[in-house]
Amino acid sequence: MKAIIKSAATIIALVASINLSAQESLWNQAELQSPIVNEDNTVSFQIFAPKAQEVLLIGTWMPREDWAPEPVSLQRDSNGVWSHTTKALASDLYTYHYMVDGLRLCDPLNPYVVRDVSSVFNYLIVPGGQGDLYAVQDVPHGSLSYRWYSSPGTQQERRLTIYTPAGYETSTQSYPVLYLLHGMGGDETAWTTLGRTVEIMDILIARGEAKPMIVVMPNGNMSQQAAPGSAPGVLSAPGMDLPLTMEGTMETTFPEIIEFVEQNYRVNAEKGQRAIAGLSMGGFHSLHISRLHPHTFDYIGLFSPAIYPLAGSIPEIYMNLDDSLSAQKNNGYSLYWIAIGKNDFLFDQVARYRANLSSLGLPFTYIETEGGHTWDLWRNYLSQFVTLLF
Amino acid sequence: MKAIIKSAATIIALVASINLSAQESLWNQAELQSPIVNEDNTVSFQIFAPKAQEVLLIGTWMPREDWAPEPVSLQRDSNGVWSHTTKALASDLYTYHYMVDGLRLCDPLNPYVVRDVSSVFNYLIVPGGQGDLYAVQDVPHGSLSYRWYSSPGTQQERRLTIYTPAGYETSTQSYPVLYLLHGMGGDETAWTTLGRTVEIMDILIARGEAKPMIVVMPNGNMSQQAAPGSAPGVLSAPGMDLPLTMEGTMETTFPEIIEFVEQNYRVNAEKGQRAIAGLSMGGFHSLHISRLHPHTFDYIGLFSPAIYPLAGSIPEIYMNLDDSLSAQKNNGYSLYWIAIGKNDFLFDQVARYRANLSSLGLPFTYIETEGGHTWDLWRNYLSQFVTLLF
Repeated sequence: MKAIIKSAATIIALVASINLSAQESLWNQAELQSPIVNEDNTVSFQIFAPKAQEVLLIGTWMPREDWAPEPVSLQRDSNGVWSHTTKALASDLYTYHYMVDGLRLCDPLNPYVVRDVSSVFNYLIVPGGQGDLYAVQDVPHGSLSYRWYSSPGTQQERRLTIYTPAGYETSTQSYPVLYLLHGMGGDETAWTTLGRTVEIMDILIARGEAKPMIVVMPNGNMSQQAAPGSAPGVLSAPGMDLPLTMEGTMETTFPEIIEFVEQNYRVNAEKGQRAIAGLSMGGFHSLHISRLHPHTFDYIGLFSPAIYPLAGSIPEIYMNLDDSLSAQKNNGYSLYWIAIGKNDFLFDQVARYRANLSSLGLPFTYIETEGGHTWDLWRNYLSQFVTLLF
Repeated sequence: MKAIIKSAATIIALVASINLSAQESLWNQAELQSPIVNEDNTVSFQIFAPKAQEVLLIGTWMPREDWAPEPVSLQRDSNGVWSHTTKALASDLYTYHYMVDGLRLCDPLNPYVVRDVSSVFNYLIVPGGQGDLYAVQDVPHGSLSYRWYSSPGTQQERRLTIYTPAGYETSTQSYPVLYLLHGMGGDETAWTTLGRTVEIMDILIARGEAKPMIVVMPNGNMSQQAAPGSAPGVLSAPGMDLPLTMEGTMETTFPEIIEFVEQNYRVNAEKGQRAIAGLSMGGFHSLHISRLHPHTFDYIGLFSPAIYPLAGSIPEIYMNLDDSLSAQKNNGYSLYWIAIGKNDFLFDQVARYRANLSSLGLPFTYIETEGGHTWDLWRNYLSQFVTLLF
C-alpha cells in the first residue's frame, strides 16, 4: 500500500491554519515566541499587534501598589511587534496578561493559562529556586482524582479533588491526610491549578522533605456543587458573591468530607495523622473547623487567613471563640501555623487573633513575610507547611 | 468579638481590582456579559474595545471553507462596545475566539477556555439537543483520574487519564474498558477537555444508553511523557511535529497500557469486554493496534481516521496490512465502526480502506456525516459509538 499523506507538514499546516485568519499572521506568529525565560532569569515578551497604540503588560513580578501591579508599556518595532524584557526575576511562578488599547487579553503565543475567579491569566516559571517546586520534575508522580461525594448537610452531590502520593496504589500502607482549603472565588480546582499542589507534593515527597500524604481539596463554596463549568447548570461567569459564604455550613458539614475520605482511601483515621490548612477564607474555615471539631486535627495551617465572619448578623457558630479555642488547647495539637504578608489587608485581623491566642495560652508558630494577599505567598506557605506535618 | 471586615463587597471589590487597570474598564466590564445563549438558541457576544478599528469573531458554528470559518465582523456602538448575535444555532458545543485589529484573543468576559494544540479557545454550549450531552447534568458522576504508569518500551514514566463510572468505587463488579485515543496535536487530556468524555459518559450511562464502562485515555505521542505543561521540562509551545509519530511505537507498546489498567482497576480482562477507538491519528492507532493484537479487542472505532502512515520510509509494522486484517477477521470481532465527514481531507483514504476491508471480507459499520476534520464530529461520534459497546 502506498502512503497518500504527503508529509506531516501538510497536516500541520492545515490544522494550524484553523487558528489564523491571514497569511501575515502566520508568518509573524511563526517567527515569534513568548514568553522566553532567559538564562539570566530575565523574561522576554513579544506580541504582534501592528495596529495597537499601546500595549501594556501586567505581571505578578511587578511591584504592586495595593492590589494591582503598575503595568509596563511595551516597545513597538517597525514590524508591529511589541516587546519587553524584564530585569532578572526571582525563581517563582508568575501570572500575567496584556492590556492592548484598553482590551484585556492573554498572550496569544502562550497556551499555558490558569483561571483565577472569572479571569484567565498566562503563567510562566522562572527556574533555579522556589519556582522549581512549581514545575513538573522528573520524580515519582502521585495521582490526581476528581471525585463526587454525597453531602446530606447541603443536600448536594459535591466534587472534591484528591492527590494520592506516588506508590499509594501499590502500597498497603495507610497514609496521613492534609485537608487543603481554597479562598473566596476559588473552588476545588484552585490548589492544583494556581496552587501547584501536585508539583509541590511530588517534589517534596521525593526529596524526603515531606512525608507521603494524601491531600484532599474540597469545594468550600457551600452553594456550589463543583467548580464553575464542572457543576450542573448554565455556564456563567464565576463570581465571588456566593450564598452560604462563611455562615457556618462548611464547618458543620465538614465531617461528611472526612467520612468520605476515610471510607474511600487507605488513611490513618486519627487526630495525629490529620492536618487542615487553607488560604484566606480557607484559613478561616481551617480555624473554625479545627476548634469546632477539637478532637480531629493535630496540625492547623492558616495562610493569610480571614479570622472573623463578615459583618451583619453573625451566626451563633462564630460566637464565643474563646471557649472552643480553650477546648482545642486542652485537647492538644502538634502545630498551629499562621503565615501572613505584611501588606495583607487581613494583617490587623491576624494580629488581633494572635494576641487572642496568646492570652488564651494556645501556642502557635507565626511566619510574617513580605507581600500581600496573593498566590505567590500561598504556594510558598504550602511548601513550608507540608514539611512540618506528621 | 466584633466583625471587622465591613462587607463581602469590600473583599470582592479589592480582589476584582487585581484584574483591572482602569476604573473605566471596571464600569464597562460590570455592565457586559458574553456570551449570552438566548432562549431562541441565538448567541450574543459583546466586547469592550473602544479603540479597535475592526473586531472579528471566529466560531465553529460558522460555515467553513476548508478549515477556517469565515469571520464575522462585529458592530461597534457609541460606547466602544462591539456586539454580534448569531442566527439560531443547533444544539452543540462551540469554540470561538476574536481577532481585534489582527490580534488574536479570547473573550475577556468568558473564563471557559480550552486548549487545542497550541491555541486557547473559548467555548459555549447551546442546549436542547446534542449540546446537552456535553454539559454537566444532574446525574450520578463518575471519577476522573490522572495516573502515571511505567513504560519499559519507551523507557518513560507516562501519564494517562482514566474515567471510572459512577458507583465504581463502591461496587464489586468488574467493568469493560474503552481505550480512547487522541489525534495529532492532542494528548491524554484532549478527550476530556475538547472531547467532553466525562459529561458524555455520565449522561449516557445514567440514561441506560451506554453500559457502565471504564474509559482509558492514554497519551499517543510517544516522545511525550504527558501533556504539555504536565511533563517534566521547560514550558514551551506545544507542537504537532513530534518525533516518534505514527512509526510503530504506540502500537508495539500498547500492551503496557492494557497491563497497567488490568492490574490497577477492576476490569473484565477479556476480548469481549475491550474496545479501542480514536480520532484521526488515534483512529490510525486503533486500526493498527487492533489488527496487530488481534485477540485483544472486540470493538473498534475509527473516527475520521488516518489509515496509512506518513510518507517516507514506511516502518515494517505498517506493511502487509492484509495478512493481519485477515487474522483479525478470523479471530472475530463484534463491531468495526468507521465514521467520517464528507469534507474530511482523509475521506479518500478511508474510502480506499473501506474497499480494502470489503475485498477482504471484514464486516464494518460505516457512518458518513456532513463536516470535516473537527471536534464537533468526534464528540458526536463518541456519543454514538459508546452506545454500541458491550
